[in-house]
Order: sequence, then structure tokens, then C-alpha cells
Amino acid sequence: MEVYIPFDAVEPKRRLEPLLSASERRSLARAMLADVVRAVSRAGRDPTVVATGPVEVAAAVEVDERRLSPAVDDRIARSDDRVAVVMADLPLLTDDVVRELLSTAGDVVLAPGLGGGTNALVTRSADFRTDYHGCSIRDHRDRARAAGLEVATVDSYRLGIDVDEPADLVEVALHADGRSADWLADRGFHLETDRTGRVTIGRGAEG
Amino acid sequence: MEVYIPFDAVEPKRRLEPLLSASERRSLARAMLADVVRAVSRAGRDPTVVATGPVEVAAAVEVDERRLSPAVDDRIARSDDRVAVVMADLPLLTDDVVRELLSTAGDVVLAPGLGGGTNALVTRSADFRTDYHGCSIRDHRDRARAAGLEVATVDSYRLGIDVDEPADLVEVALHADGRSADWLADRGFHLETDRTGRVTIGRGAEG
Repeated sequence: MEVYIPFDAVEPKRRLEPLLSASERRSLARAMLADVVRAVSRAGRDPTVVATGPVEVAAAVEVDERRLSPAVDDRIARSDDRVAVVMADLPLLTDDVVRELLSTAGDVVLAPGLGGGTNALVTRSADFRTDYHGCSIRDHRDRARAAGLEVATVDSYRLGIDVDEPADLVEVALHADGRSADWLADRGFHLETDRTGRVTIGRGAEG
Repeated sequence: MEVYIPFDAVEPKRRLEPLLSASERRSLARAMLADVVRAVSRAGRDPTVVATGPVEVAAAVEVDERRLSPAVDDRIARSDDRVAVVMADLPLLTDDVVRELLSTAGDVVLAPGLGGGTNALVTRSADFRTDYHGCSIRDHRDRARAAGLEVATVDSYRLGIDVDEPADLVEVALHADGRSADWLADRGFHLETDRTGRVTIGRGAEG
């Protein structure tokens, strides 16, 4: 089975702008990619990073400037085996969870992400087509069923937390242990609890 | 094993205030409680709701006006068996996930929730004490380890999504199928995708 990891090499993680500069966002995105590649590799697979531009990472890289869905669909259509697609912004991912994803039965296996996303999928049909824009988990479910494909879901917090917004970095600081977590710690990010008991992430002097 | 479901019967879900009136927040909180009670019951357990005031629900109710941690700790201390504590605001919960929680080995089993919470725990030691305020998942881990107790974690999206903020209702509309999801649909809530592809929940005419 091929495992593809799509990656925006140019302007990733725009919604972290309140907290991070453009160069920091690129740097954190690469740390997250390295964590995902590590998890897949430790699960015994050699992933391929499908990047919109050149990127240095411990995996094969294919540069593809197309948008996410056509770049992925092209690889699904050309494959004669199962294909897995794992997002690059899942720093909580572990090899155990990758194994669970890859071993779950179903023509199409979906792992939901926060806010309607599809953080990972496996398709055992070369006819399945993706639509990552908008509420993709619902669209992927509907498309698979309309094509008569059996859909299974992976119930995983570690697969479900993708990093898009500052609040997601709380999850990285708490539950990840790879390069992304180190990246945050090295730059002085730490958790804070406000008077309502809510946990946030901040940078600078500890509050 | 006793399964306790703590419930704020008085002023629940204050962070949903931008979207829901006080009476709607109470009503939705009861729908979510009913969903959690259903999941636990279907898993073959008779849960006990520990509520800060009277509440009508298909389960035994103990009224306890204390704050969450002392109310839970008292029950752990008095128990001579394992104790499970499942939060009342987990409308994505299913009986399969409850079974996984209750069957996971470990002196203390923790299920993380968004933002540093502990959405469910099992303790097989009557000496364990909770601290639900603030970053409870970290505090619970640290306390258990300091007491020499073995800690295990349940990796579940359905356990991890507790409903505190408007964005969490997107998850309910997408991934739940009980009273809470019906509650939202009956009141005209529906999903919207903005021009950046982000999914939100709104009420009224479809956008």
C-alpha cells in the first residue's frame, strides 16, 4: 500500500497567523510533517510526501503544484493497490494509530478531523475520488456510499487533531512528543490556565 | 464497576452563550446527558448521574451540590471496586467506546478531551484523587504517577469531543446521532462552509 502525505510547502498554516510569523509557520509545518513521516515509517511503511514545492524530509518527495484533491485523486486513479492519504499536520500521530488506520477493514476508511475535515483515509477502490474542500468528511462518506463502497471510520483522538488554529497547539504541547512539541517548547511557548479554568497557549514570561 | 456521570443541573454550558439562551443551554445539556446515559446503558452498565440539582433522566440520580472534584473524589474513596467517571457533555459517545474505556487495563485510565480536559477516567485505586480544574489531563497523569499508579490512555475522538463552545456543535451535527443532534436539527441549526473552506454552525435560513 502506498501512503501519501500531501504537504503545502509554500504558505502553510495561515490560520496560525495571530500567533506565528510566516517563517515560523513554515518551520512548524515542517516539524509536523517530520512527525507524521516518523509515525508512518515506524509503522513499517515508506511514505511519499506530495508537496507543492521542494521540501527536505526523511521520505520520498514528489512535487505536484496542483490543489490537494486533484493531486491525491491522480494517485488513487493510477494505483493498482490500496492507497492511504495522511495529512501532514497531525503531530499527535503515533505508529500504533497508523497501524490501526491501515488495518481497518472497509472499501473506504475515513478518520475525521476537527471541523469536518478528513485527516486520513484509505481507499481500496481506484474509483474513489476526494473532495477536501469544505466539509470533507461528510462529502467523502456520501461519495463512497453513492459509489456502493463500504465505509469504515477510525475513532482516534490522535488522528482527529489537526493543527490549524492557536487552540490546536494546546493539544500538541499536551499530547505530542516529537519535533513539533520540541519546536513549541524551544520557542518559549507554554500552557496557561485562565481564571475560568480554560487552557491556552502563550509565549514569553510564564503567567 | 460504578459509572458516575457528573452533571451541572443549574447553569451548564456557559461558553455556548454567544449562540444559545440560558434555557436552551439547559435543554441541550439535558439532551447530551441523555445521550451519554444511553451509551453507558447500551454498554451494559447502570450509570449514576451525580447532579448539582434535580434532573429527570433514565438513570439513578444523586444530588450533590459540591464542586466536581470533591463530589467525584468522595465516591472514589468510598468505593471498594473500580470507578468510572464519564462527563455528561459527550454526545458523540457510543456503547463501543464505553466498552473500550471500561476494558482498558491500567490502575488509572484517562481519556483526554479538547483543551486539556479529562473526559472520562477509570480508577482501580480508591486512593486516586481528581483535579478537574484547569489542565486536568496533565494533573491526573502526574498525580497517578506520583502515587505509583500505572496510567493508560484511551485514544478516541468520540470520547475526546466535549461540547463547550459553538465550534464543538459542528462535531455534534456531523458525528452524533442521538438526542443532541436531533435537538440542533429541530432548532434550525445547520452547517455552513465559509469561503476559506472552514465549517461553522448557524441558525436560520441556509446560507
